Amino acid sequence: MVCIKSFANDGYKLWLQYNHIQDKQIRTSYQSNIKRIIPFGNSETIKVALKELELGLNGMLGSKVLSGTKNNIESNSLMFGSESSLNEIVKNQLGNAFNEINDEGFVIKTISIKGKNQIIITGKNDVGVLYGVFKFLRLLQTHQSIENLNIIDAPKIKVRVLNHWDNLDRTVERGYAGFSIWDWHRLPDYIDSRYRDYARANASIGINGTVLNNVNANALILTPQYLEKVEALANVFRPYGIKVYLTTRFSAPIEIGGLETADPYDAEVIAWWKNKVKEIYSKIPDFGGFLVKANSEGQPGPQNYGRNHVDGANMLADALTPFGGVVMWRAFVYSEHDITDRAKQAYSEFVPYDGQFKDNVIIQVKNGAIDFQPREPFHPMFGTMPKTPLMMEFQITQEYLGQSTHTVFLPKLYEEVLQSDTYKKGKGSTVAKIIDGSLDNKVLTGIAGVSNIGNDINWTGNPMLQANWYGFGRLAWNPYLSSEEIADEWLRSTFSNDEKFVKPVKDMLLSSREAVVNYMTPLGLHHIMDTGHHYGPGPWVSDLSRPEWNPVYYHKADSLGVGFDRTPSGSNATAQYAPQVASKFNNLETCPEEDLLWFHHVSWDFKLKNGKTLWDGMALKYQEGVDQVASMISIWEEAKPYVDEERFSDVYMLLNIQHKEAKWWRDACLLYFQEFSQKSLPVGVEKSTQTLDYFKSLKFTFAPGN
Amino acid sequence: MVCIKSFANDGYKLWLQYNHIQDKQIRTSYQSNIKRIIPFGNSETIKVALKELELGLNGMLGSKVLSGTKNNIESNSLMFGSESSLNEIVKNQLGNAFNEINDEGFVIKTISIKGKNQIIITGKNDVGVLYGVFKFLRLLQTHQSIENLNIIDAPKIKVRVLNHWDNLDRTVERGYAGFSIWDWHRLPDYIDSRYRDYARANASIGINGTVLNNVNANALILTPQYLEKVEALANVFRPYGIKVYLTTRFSAPIEIGGLETADPYDAEVIAWWKNKVKEIYSKIPDFGGFLVKANSEGQPGPQNYGRNHVDGANMLADALTPFGGVVMWRAFVYSEHDITDRAKQAYSEFVPYDGQFKDNVIIQVKNGAIDFQPREPFHPMFGTMPKTPLMMEFQITQEYLGQSTHTVFLPKLYEEVLQSDTYKKGKGSTVAKIIDGSLDNKVLTGIAGVSNIGNDINWTGNPMLQANWYGFGRLAWNPYLSSEEIADEWLRSTFSNDEKFVKPVKDMLLSSREAVVNYMTPLGLHHIMDTGHHYGPGPWVSDLSRPEWNPVYYHKADSLGVGFDRTPSGSNATAQYAPQVASKFNNLETCPEEDLLWFHHVSWDFKLKNGKTLWDGMALKYQEGVDQVASMISIWEEAKPYVDEERFSDVYMLLNIQHKEAKWWRDACLLYFQEFSQKSLPVGVEKSTQTLDYFKSLKFTFAPGN
Repeated sequence: MVCIKSFANDGYKLWLQYNHIQDKQIRTSYQSNIKRIIPFGNSETIKVALKELELGLNGMLGSKVLSGTKNNIESNSLMFGSESSLNEIVKNQLGNAFNEINDEGFVIKTISIKGKNQIIITGKNDVGVLYGVFKFLRLLQTHQSIENLNIIDAPKIKVRVLNHWDNLDRTVERGYAGFSIWDWHRLPDYIDSRYRDYARANASIGINGTVLNNVNANALILTPQYLEKVEALANVFRPYGIKVYLTTRFSAPIEIGGLETADPYDAEVIAWWKNKVKEIYSKIPDFGGFLVKANSEGQPGPQNYGRNHVDGANMLADALTPFGGVVMWRAFVYSEHDITDRAKQAYSEFVPYDGQFKDNVIIQVKNGAIDFQPREPFHPMFGTMPKTPLMMEFQITQEYLGQSTHTVFLPKLYEEVLQSDTYKKGKGSTVAKIIDGSLDNKVLTGIAGVSNIGNDINWTGNPMLQANWYGFGRLAWNPYLSSEEIADEWLRSTFSNDEKFVKPVKDMLLSSREAVVNYMTPLGLHHIMDTGHHYGPGPWVSDLSRPEWNPVYYHKADSLGVGFDRTPSGSNATAQYAPQVASKFNNLETCPEEDLLWFHHVSWDFKLKNGKTLWDGMALKYQEGVDQVASMISIWEEAKPYVDEERFSDVYMLLNIQHKEAKWWRDACLLYFQEFSQKSLPVGVEKSTQTLDYFKSLKFTFAPGN
Repeated sequence: MVCIKSFANDGYKLWLQYNHIQDKQIRTSYQSNIKRIIPFGNSETIKVALKELELGLNGMLGSKVLSGTKNNIESNSLMFGSESSLNEIVKNQLGNAFNEINDEGFVIKTISIKGKNQIIITGKNDVGVLYGVFKFLRLLQTHQSIENLNIIDAPKIKVRVLNHWDNLDRTVERGYAGFSIWDWHRLPDYIDSRYRDYARANASIGINGTVLNNVNANALILTPQYLEKVEALANVFRPYGIKVYLTTRFSAPIEIGGLETADPYDAEVIAWWKNKVKEIYSKIPDFGGFLVKANSEGQPGPQNYGRNHVDGANMLADALTPFGGVVMWRAFVYSEHDITDRAKQAYSEFVPYDGQFKDNVIIQVKNGAIDFQPREPFHPMFGTMPKTPLMMEFQITQEYLGQSTHTVFLPKLYEEVLQSDTYKKGKGSTVAKIIDGSLDNKVLTGIAGVSNIGNDINWTGNPMLQANWYGFGRLAWNPYLSSEEIADEWLRSTFSNDEKFVKPVKDMLLSSREAVVNYMTPLGLHHIMDTGHHYGPGPWVSDLSRPEWNPVYYHKADSLGVGFDRTPSGSNATAQYAPQVASKFNNLETCPEEDLLWFHHVSWDFKLKNGKTLWDGMALKYQEGVDQVASMISIWEEAKPYVDEERFSDVYMLLNIQHKEAKWWRDACLLYFQEFSQKSLPVGVEKSTQTLDYFKSLKFTFAPGN
């Protein structure tokens, strides 16, 4: 077949482009190392691994790689299969490798058979083999050598899940990439091929679970009508090592069970959940478990019945125990009755329960104590519940970060959080060590990312934001990876290996997170987004019914200064951190300037480290953010020769929107804060062409994701 | 570049696949006739025509076709440009062709220059050239000869529009293919490449307008914030000859204008609309006009102020007149206070106004008097308002026809309506002649199709239903085309030219409409779908507040028989038809059996033409529908070698759902009607494995499109 090169790319293939390798030397080297591919075993997982290898190798090498069989190992084969499928000749050459990996790990090794080099990809289980296959393909995608391979790797975290805040009507809470990919109405009989591609993409980065529905849950998901739909998805995902989880509405026994209460002490309620769980496992034997948002933002929970989080979580955990399921219980709670500081509440409410949860309960904690801001200090709960497994909840969807129009490379944010030192067990007690269980020797470990996936053709509404899904998965596998490494491999797999492309665009990605902090919430400002949809600036909002829903609650700007005093002279939230950390935050001299207004109410004339006043420094930060986006646009313009037309143009349009909106943020926030500071803008900061009233008048009735 | 043939096809490319032509003889013949392509002119429309030719020819011929220039006509060129761009040598060979076409028509002719054959595609305007280019590409797509071409064609209807029932939050009323393709939030700055592909697809079948938003309108669409988004879409569509229209909420002067009334006689209201229209045209100089649903199903309208449809429509028409815009005023009205027959109401309400509407008002009438049923007799308004332009409203989306899971080839339905003879001016007064204006010599003519397009990757949620979008467009261009011809060219352009594929699958498409009638509403039954979402059977529903919302209102089943008596002994709705038609419908002997229960309440023992009783005949029809779907599945299984894996599998899964649901329809309806007939099922009809109560208990809370 003749084929004309088409330079169109709709982005659907994500980082699994498997583009033909143009460099002949590299291609030939790969071809000479892979003359045949030989699967060991015949499980569904091995079959999808074979299919992926064929797809990847055919695409990258441009010629059909021959298959072989186990009993007919030719020279230079690529063999793959689990430990139990290996023959002695292979096993003997693997040494102690299997001792170094866990159930999901893999080994990729160049061995010698009949005097010829062979590559073996193996693991204790088939899913490890699949992970190894994706790792191997990534070597080729990133143009690395496949000579003398000896790679041993395994995930450091056990439960690595996406959280889909997807409703049954296919709207997605905080979704900015279209609507839910779950076509509930046509399930179970219509299996969108997207489900398989979703599983492929997740397996390729090591994600091993998915919570299908919104934490603000609808009980109908637990009815037989929906469970058979969930089962159909579980069947698609199973070969890829992906377990299905569901969120549960705590009041489900009332809403779909016909009971009068959902009290976790009620015998009928307990029995109802036990039966429901049994029903689920009869359909989905490897069902993962429940994610629960209880007594939070209006969701029902055990407190409705005078019980507490432990009572609620343990009741569900008991039902799941016989089947090996887990309860992920969210710590995102804040009460309208607490008048001190919302940032303190999750800690206050949960820490006293340490040691009381069942073994299969894990507490899911957001990265910071407020709510997925462009920058937050790490959550003080990390390290504070040594007897309780805590899992991380990152947000991949950009609720407060420009939604799907702004290019923000989030692995940089994740890395900052994971590398934060809690000092809870002395220096080196990083968040990463708490999450992977190594600090407190935890068996059950987990990490969740709130998905940015929708039914847009390119999945994430913006081709660049695929990197955040990718990066979350890679860090879930290994929370010690650097964001730079992630950016590098993602760019190469997704766009091009050309250094003239990779280097500048990698720099662009790595600086993009600081850019959004600068033009939205510099110096520790937070939660000053507009109401409800959180799209655009709204620092002036002060009329919402609950105090902590209002931006003014968080910035507390007045004629004297700005910022939330969380030191002992204020809310004393810093007391929730280890003493070393607390004293660093409490002291104006040592508090990192990036967190300044998070912890301190500071005079407009306060001198920053660069000698500028707070007002001037803040204004210059806003301007810097705008300028950073301008230079992102320049970098992208230079990248044009290396990117297909469609993705180039998509990103280009979106960066221009980001630039426009960065200016909007700068102008609206500075005009607003200027009313308090009563100071003029420093040299170098552009003046707004609009009035503050104009910015206040903007309404976005149908902003998405709300 | 090397390229491995991939057999995956996500359906995004619709009927514009432009697949490589495998037949060497045909390909070579095309290549020898098209050595160069030469555009005459440089307008945006000519540019997109060139781009389309390059895409199509490169794809189908597998080699890059060279471009040339007007002054350098080589042998065997394909030239294209409007009349004014042609030189004398070309013009002289076109004879009187331009006299035979209208402003949108085209001529494709093989002429001779320097003793060599050349192909010229031309028209009075560039858009005609574009239509000619798509026609030319279709010749190649369907493997027709391009020797000695002499094709002269022009659209027979002036306004050929899609109606999108798309809301500003991207939900789509009666949408079953995902959500709205209009990403309002990111417009005007983010232009989804889908918008261009939408325009290409529409232009390829001659659609020249699009109503972007729902007839149940939101006034916000007319605010500056949204008009700049509409403008951006209009800019994308303009080169493709596609005008943008909007629906207006009649009360917009109150909701967004700050007025106290929307009375069409109020001077401020009149001025508000004049200014609003002026504002629209300042942004969109070729804006098409308004589509209005007024005083219908709760929408506001002139009757709220004691005025009538004429008052409302003419007020808007006056505002549009200076700019050449039109008002499409919907006749879909029915009052809860009328106790006789909903089928009679639109006629009763509108016919007295004949002659009173302004010249730029066109009344939009659904194909039947109820609401887009699997089969309805043609609407009695057709032919009854000789002084008023009437346009057809077809539904492409399958609200009552199995939604996006059921393969139903709708051109068969459209053809049946268009070929119906109203006898309003004697024999031969077909609906087509009313719609194209030829019967009453109308200048303004129009046809609308309620879109089945959503943001599913394959646009229509089911690859087979792309045929309905295609077929609507083709019939809008020429309402005398046969559904068979349409099926043939669509299948060839979309899948394969192989006769072993085309013939059986064409038969399958052509019989699919009768299948859905049989398993849902045989023998003239109608509107017995479940409430609200209209998904699945609900003949038992009788508890809705308005009588005509209940299925029992329409079938009137009792122990004696079933059906709605619309003869003079009943509602006398037949009196709205011409006497020849009325007497045919009134007489049980001459009434077509397919409309029997639409017009007559008939005894269960009534003898059908095949000698069966009505009860037996009805049961056998339900069974026949189920059997027809089973044979559609068999045909599709045989088609497997000719179709890519993804589309094959999609359609296969969906046909199986259709089969399951056809049985559901059969079982639920027969169990229900059996309660009245008290007769057993005839031989050959399968018994239900479920009870009637089971079917009544089914609930679909999140059925789409509701």
